[in-house]
Amino acid sequence: MSDLPLKSYAGLQKTFAADIGGAANQKQIGEIYLGSLQFLGSATREPLRSRIPGKEYFAFRIGDRLSRAVNMRQFAPRTRDWKAFASALNKRDLSKFTPEKITEIIYSVAISFCCYIDLTKQRDQKTPGTFLEYLISHLFAWQLRVNPTTRIQVLNLDMETELPTDFIFNLGKDRPKFHLPIKASTRERVIQVWAHQRVLDGVFGTGRFLGTPVILAETKTDAVKREVIEICLPEQWRIYQMHIAQLKRIYYLDVPATYVKLNDVFPPITVKSFGHFFFEADSLSA
Amino acid sequence: MSDLPLKSYAGLQKTFAADIGGAANQKQIGEIYLGSLQFLGSATREPLRSRIPGKEYFAFRIGDRLSRAVNMRQFAPRTRDWKAFASALNKRDLSKFTPEKITEIIYSVAISFCCYIDLTKQRDQKTPGTFLEYLISHLFAWQLRVNPTTRIQVLNLDMETELPTDFIFNLGKDRPKFHLPIKASTRERVIQVWAHQRVLDGVFGTGRFLGTPVILAETKTDAVKREVIEICLPEQWRIYQMHIAQLKRIYYLDVPATYVKLNDVFPPITVKSFGHFFFEADSLSA
Repeated sequence: MSDLPLKSYAGLQKTFAADIGGAANQKQIGEIYLGSLQFLGSATREPLRSRIPGKEYFAFRIGDRLSRAVNMRQFAPRTRDWKAFASALNKRDLSKFTPEKITEIIYSVAISFCCYIDLTKQRDQKTPGTFLEYLISHLFAWQLRVNPTTRIQVLNLDMETELPTDFIFNLGKDRPKFHLPIKASTRERVIQVWAHQRVLDGVFGTGRFLGTPVILAETKTDAVKREVIEICLPEQWRIYQMHIAQLKRIYYLDVPATYVKLNDVFPPITVKSFGHFFFEADSLSA
Repeated sequence: MSDLPLKSYAGLQKTFAADIGGAANQKQIGEIYLGSLQFLGSATREPLRSRIPGKEYFAFRIGDRLSRAVNMRQFAPRTRDWKAFASALNKRDLSKFTPEKITEIIYSVAISFCCYIDLTKQRDQKTPGTFLEYLISHLFAWQLRVNPTTRIQVLNLDMETELPTDFIFNLGKDRPKFHLPIKASTRERVIQVWAHQRVLDGVFGTGRFLGTPVILAETKTDAVKREVIEICLPEQWRIYQMHIAQLKRIYYLDVPATYVKLNDVFPPITVKSFGHFFFEADSLSA
């Protein structure tokens, strides 16, 4: 029974590409979520000492295995919430949901499977990262009604090549294209996100691609001290935004306290919880 | 006895920063090299199937542990070569050495310690990477006669911050500054190198920093098939060089066959074996 989420995950892997924003993927994501919750029901919750003002964290424990940190307020493992959200997606009507509520639900889906893997696999960062890509690109594809690609053709005088990219959503002529990097956390590797945006701006023209990375969290747990911190580099982000390229939004499922303040500096970097995307996607190009 | 290289390495860590290009570091690097060679003398050499035209590789084996791939022609574990090179460094006269010979010697130093760690530690990528940083930044500091820094002050109107960087060598007014990233391999993470160059160009002005990354190799070994390949992305490099920033040189200790060809395209990207640096360092700004 404990391998139920992994079996649903294997199913998702197989069928994912066919219709990324489609109902079949939504159903399998739901199965993974419910299976993960069921598994985590047998784990204990161990409080962590949070060094982040205003945020509390715990970790799941089974035996001597400890999961990654889970944001206590953001984690709302209610099956009925997911079902209501899925049903609203199917009706294309999210009017009964707030951005905060949606973020909470999607955070709970993402972190549940991550913790399940933390507790059942050794040093597996890849599976949680790939699941996060499935989850977020599925929701983007649902919202934007188009399947993403991860390669783009470059024609440049006598040069013709294919550039591998993060998820790219092409909404067609006279509409924006979205550039969607998806990360479990970024730390110092975040410069890659700005660099990829720079390449798209350089090759195709500034403004054609809206850079909207989605990141799970920036927490780091010290398993010995049972302490959780957030690793943030706000000053470096400002330099990247000024000197490499402009990102339109940076969405988080668990928004780091330090990055919220970047909305208030000038020039601002707009950092929001991911739920906002569903309400502003159509107006981001303005 | 098998922990001799690690003891010398711990010594190097302690004293490294005091005089990066100095004789004390050179002596400790020599001890690490000789200790590693001694250790590897008890290992067997297992031929690998090379998928790289014109290059042959083997791996060191002890019991069921297999090291990373070693370039057969480039690996010349002769103590007397190192001693002659060290003595030439101390006299500041490398005229008896060719770029190829120097590359061979430094490759042998680097790969010996890497293989030693591969055979004695579990999944330790950090120690080989840090040793490579010590080795290459020591040689740069010797050649340029200045200690590097890894932070740089940014003053920009109402903004004042410190930017963490790769190794930066500031030769003073009216002379170039060097921007030296050091990597065991790059793969898709290489875009970071161009992005950091872009930040330096943007903050301080284009042309003030010469970007000269030094990379060990791009080999990847399939331990099951006993096969070695090189992972190269030449078309992406061209796009980065055109659209992110300009790197002056890309030096390798084991130059990938595919990247050599970038010297012949237009606009060229100059990829060379690291030994060339010692003969062209003074003229790179022209």
